[in-house]
Amino acid sequence: MDFIKDIVGGFSVIENLKVSGDREGKYGVTIIVSPNSSASAVFTSNKVVAAPVTYTKNVLKKGIISAIFVNSGNANCFTGKQGILDCEKLVELVSKDLKIPKDEIAISSTGVIGRTLPVDIISEVAYKSISKLGSKAENSLAAAKAIMTTDTFPKEAAVEVTLMNGQKVKIAGIAKGSGMIAPNMGTMLSFIVTDANLPSALINKALKIAADISFNMVVVDGDESTNDTCLMLANGASGIDAFTNDEIDSNFQEALNYLCIRLARKMARDGEGATKFIEANVKGALTNNDARIAAKSIISSSLFKSAVFGGDPNWGRIVSAIGYSGAELNPNIVTIAIADEEDDVELVRNGEILAFDNTTYLKRAEKIMQSKKVIINIDINLGDFEATAWGCDLTYDYVKINAEYTT
Amino acid sequence: MDFIKDIVGGFSVIENLKVSGDREGKYGVTIIVSPNSSASAVFTSNKVVAAPVTYTKNVLKKGIISAIFVNSGNANCFTGKQGILDCEKLVELVSKDLKIPKDEIAISSTGVIGRTLPVDIISEVAYKSISKLGSKAENSLAAAKAIMTTDTFPKEAAVEVTLMNGQKVKIAGIAKGSGMIAPNMGTMLSFIVTDANLPSALINKALKIAADISFNMVVVDGDESTNDTCLMLANGASGIDAFTNDEIDSNFQEALNYLCIRLARKMARDGEGATKFIEANVKGALTNNDARIAAKSIISSSLFKSAVFGGDPNWGRIVSAIGYSGAELNPNIVTIAIADEEDDVELVRNGEILAFDNTTYLKRAEKIMQSKKVIINIDINLGDFEATAWGCDLTYDYVKINAEYTT
Repeated sequence: MDFIKDIVGGFSVIENLKVSGDREGKYGVTIIVSPNSSASAVFTSNKVVAAPVTYTKNVLKKGIISAIFVNSGNANCFTGKQGILDCEKLVELVSKDLKIPKDEIAISSTGVIGRTLPVDIISEVAYKSISKLGSKAENSLAAAKAIMTTDTFPKEAAVEVTLMNGQKVKIAGIAKGSGMIAPNMGTMLSFIVTDANLPSALINKALKIAADISFNMVVVDGDESTNDTCLMLANGASGIDAFTNDEIDSNFQEALNYLCIRLARKMARDGEGATKFIEANVKGALTNNDARIAAKSIISSSLFKSAVFGGDPNWGRIVSAIGYSGAELNPNIVTIAIADEEDDVELVRNGEILAFDNTTYLKRAEKIMQSKKVIINIDINLGDFEATAWGCDLTYDYVKINAEYTT
Repeated sequence: MDFIKDIVGGFSVIENLKVSGDREGKYGVTIIVSPNSSASAVFTSNKVVAAPVTYTKNVLKKGIISAIFVNSGNANCFTGKQGILDCEKLVELVSKDLKIPKDEIAISSTGVIGRTLPVDIISEVAYKSISKLGSKAENSLAAAKAIMTTDTFPKEAAVEVTLMNGQKVKIAGIAKGSGMIAPNMGTMLSFIVTDANLPSALINKALKIAADISFNMVVVDGDESTNDTCLMLANGASGIDAFTNDEIDSNFQEALNYLCIRLARKMARDGEGATKFIEANVKGALTNNDARIAAKSIISSSLFKSAVFGGDPNWGRIVSAIGYSGAELNPNIVTIAIADEEDDVELVRNGEILAFDNTTYLKRAEKIMQSKKVIINIDINLGDFEATAWGCDLTYDYVKINAEYTT
């Protein structure tokens, strides 16, 4: 896809955008200032929803956002009316300090659930963060760092896309997340800005498509967060439309998909305690949903994830995971292969096992299972649908990180 | 329920029943001989099904079983036609040695998937096991031990039940399973025998009811096995009917539920690597299914399971798990309490948080989270349905056991 080009610099590649991030212990604050941008977002489907999600959904009704306030360290979830009041206090702080109307400020939080937001501490960090707003690559990196919780590295991506008409626009984003699905717990947050013109209704449409094949295909532990948010702004700084006649430019959509997948893969790679990255590709499914649930089932299996950690070529667990996924399946025609960057070996071909004990198939599989990146390729051989999911191994450190989270 | 009485001795309490078990390294063989018994079973819902499940489903069409052959160490799953041939060989061995018609012998397996059954080794163990058939408590214990894989203790239970008409019959069972759900991977197997008369159609009905509130409410890791089987025989040795006019005696049903719940709780307690037992009670749900999925969601949350392991009172993860379970929920009216054998403390009452930092509520919760048995009590406050699920904590040892399973 030569119309999509990776570029470096994160948010700094977008004109008319200032960002910052700062941190005091476990409390971080990221500020994104993008005046008068059209905006839309996708949120968690959890029925328990954090105060900032409720608050931001309301702000987004107008479809215009000029700033985003994000804090890490406290999810401001299950905090009742106080939670909404605390959102208002922080929005007011940003509004006053940056002279931005309150109803154009979105807010997002990640961290522990069921503790009231320490507004005083977070306000202090917020002032420090605001004082550092800038449009350089280092500002983008600081923004990506300040939203981290159990993340071990910041997550940024930026692309330049050549639209169908030959004009060029940019999309940049940051994300955090390491214990999550669909999107999920430990909270997945992602903030994306493009310099293209795109009305909020089309942002919403484009974002749903992109999230569905990226963030929603990452599984770390199967828990789904109360705070997950992917919020996208189009500030129009390029003066270029990324749509014609209410249709999103198809190259733009591809580029957005690509950017979201890049961020999603970084999340899977940074899964809590992960030592290995797993990719599951399913093709030949009878329906799109079948392909998705089969791919996610492999990535979600605690048994298979443990086997990957141990480098154990226990491929029976792959078969079992597809079997209980709910996807239509005939075990007698399925093909299962395992690959890494160097090798690609079939274990089962059209239902016939190749990887018996003491075969070269199994020995090659054993070697692949030692790799840092393990790829599972399944052909269900029933239809034309395919999907990819990403995840990581289940390790001692996952348990350790989550056994000691609030203490 | 004074019509149900726990009794000791496992299978030895049932007349006209001989059982045995023996083991050679990782391969165990259990034999259950119960001549001319009506029988039915419930099996895994995994679309990938082991050869012995396919084989036994076929045998059960007649509804009469005289013997059950069980091996551990190899699941005989994803083994194609060879898998069925191997079932036939082992059934033939039992048939010849014990003079039982082949079409009255059920077979069941547990162990690694995708390896052909080592029939020679298993035959040797089978002969040794058959030679030890007996009707004493020690034979029942040997049978329970021979089906173990990663189980750390054998699982037996027996009850005497006073039927509605005052007559007494007995039900006894053994089970194995430690990494599983609904029932699940690592494989759950359970074999139950009653000395009552009960036709196979009614056994099937009774077993479905009992399995639904027992084995199907145990979650260790969310993986579902290809081999799960719960097979029940009624040998009629007591000469007493446990039914009238095609209706199961309601006391008998209660006793079967009780027995299955006892075995299921043992499985949860013996979850792979578990150090703690978790019980989740949900009431006030809008539907029966809502109660079930909410209870199971808590028990399934890797995040909450890790928190229990670490003794971290991170109750926000309980809220989140109910929120994404799919059950109807209004967070503003939910009540959440945590308990152990000594204390019972509300954390959230009708949506209002009680367990803020530095409160006695949270301190008591911290102490409860240190217990070996942690009970979560949820009132959704929307309806009249309730359910209970059982599970265990997620530990370093779970990962270790499953990282090194086949090697």
